[in-house]
Amino acid sequence: MESSATLPLSQLPFVYPATPRSNKAYPFWPCKRRSSLPTRLRCNKMYVPGFGEASPEAKAAKHLHNFFTYVAVKIVAAQLESYNPEAYEELIEFLGRHSLNDGDKFCAAMFRESSRHKNLALRIMEVRSAYCKNDFEWDNLKRLALKMVTESNTRLMTEYVLETSHVESEK
Amino acid sequence: MESSATLPLSQLPFVYPATPRSNKAYPFWPCKRRSSLPTRLRCNKMYVPGFGEASPEAKAAKHLHNFFTYVAVKIVAAQLESYNPEAYEELIEFLGRHSLNDGDKFCAAMFRESSRHKNLALRIMEVRSAYCKNDFEWDNLKRLALKMVTESNTRLMTEYVLETSHVESEK
Repeated sequence: MESSATLPLSQLPFVYPATPRSNKAYPFWPCKRRSSLPTRLRCNKMYVPGFGEASPEAKAAKHLHNFFTYVAVKIVAAQLESYNPEAYEELIEFLGRHSLNDGDKFCAAMFRESSRHKNLALRIMEVRSAYCKNDFEWDNLKRLALKMVTESNTRLMTEYVLETSHVESEK
Repeated sequence: MESSATLPLSQLPFVYPATPRSNKAYPFWPCKRRSSLPTRLRCNKMYVPGFGEASPEAKAAKHLHNFFTYVAVKIVAAQLESYNPEAYEELIEFLGRHSLNDGDKFCAAMFRESSRHKNLALRIMEVRSAYCKNDFEWDNLKRLALKMVTESNTRLMTEYVLETSHVESEK
């Protein structure tokens, strides 16, 4: 399943069968080319619609931003659990009442809860900044994601082939 | 809010006020050190609990993996919309019945729907692999996430200060 984004049709026999097997079978890629190619195609990248003025990278960064807040809450909770059970209880109680899906909303709400919660929120914001800048392994993230897509694609195809071979042999 | 993960207490006067204002005020960091530091602290990284045998990077990679499937579906749908309305309709109809939250489950279900859907699933899997390997801008993701955490922290604090200044001035 590894292929370049600009791979021509002729190199994809598996995905694009040469001989359609039914009237409803269709090629997934057109033979003729568009006369006016979008900008993303001109620079050899696939056109990704539906992100408005943002980009997929910006959307992924927003997801990661919320994830870093979640990680920061975990880090701060673990620190407090050992050394400050009172603050730990307050954090857990606040977590029970507020969703962590939107990290910024969570911090904004915590800021306004009480002066003690404000200090907790400041600590979480400080930790998410330090974590994202110093601790998070960006190269590892890329390596794991590339590995995951290759392994998942192979696994999905293998499972399907094994399943259909099994059905065939039972007939 | 920019600080190192190993910043000493003395450099954080804002987060750790020197003079507690009430009986319930508490320091968020202990003065004494643990005698047995976890491995992550030994290598100057903050200890992140709750990820079991996985890591935050693996969890983030799994999120991104599902995101790449979502992007691949968008790319394939946009391609089909212009050139193969019949396949486009089938994809949209399938999307209405199946969640894209788990990309692998989505592809596995599509594989088993019909032989035409199988080809669609193969196309989506091929596109997510190519997108993640060639098109996705990993450096840009990191740049945007770092920018987002700094800007969000500044914005949250500014909003709070402006809000409380406003309340104070009204008294």
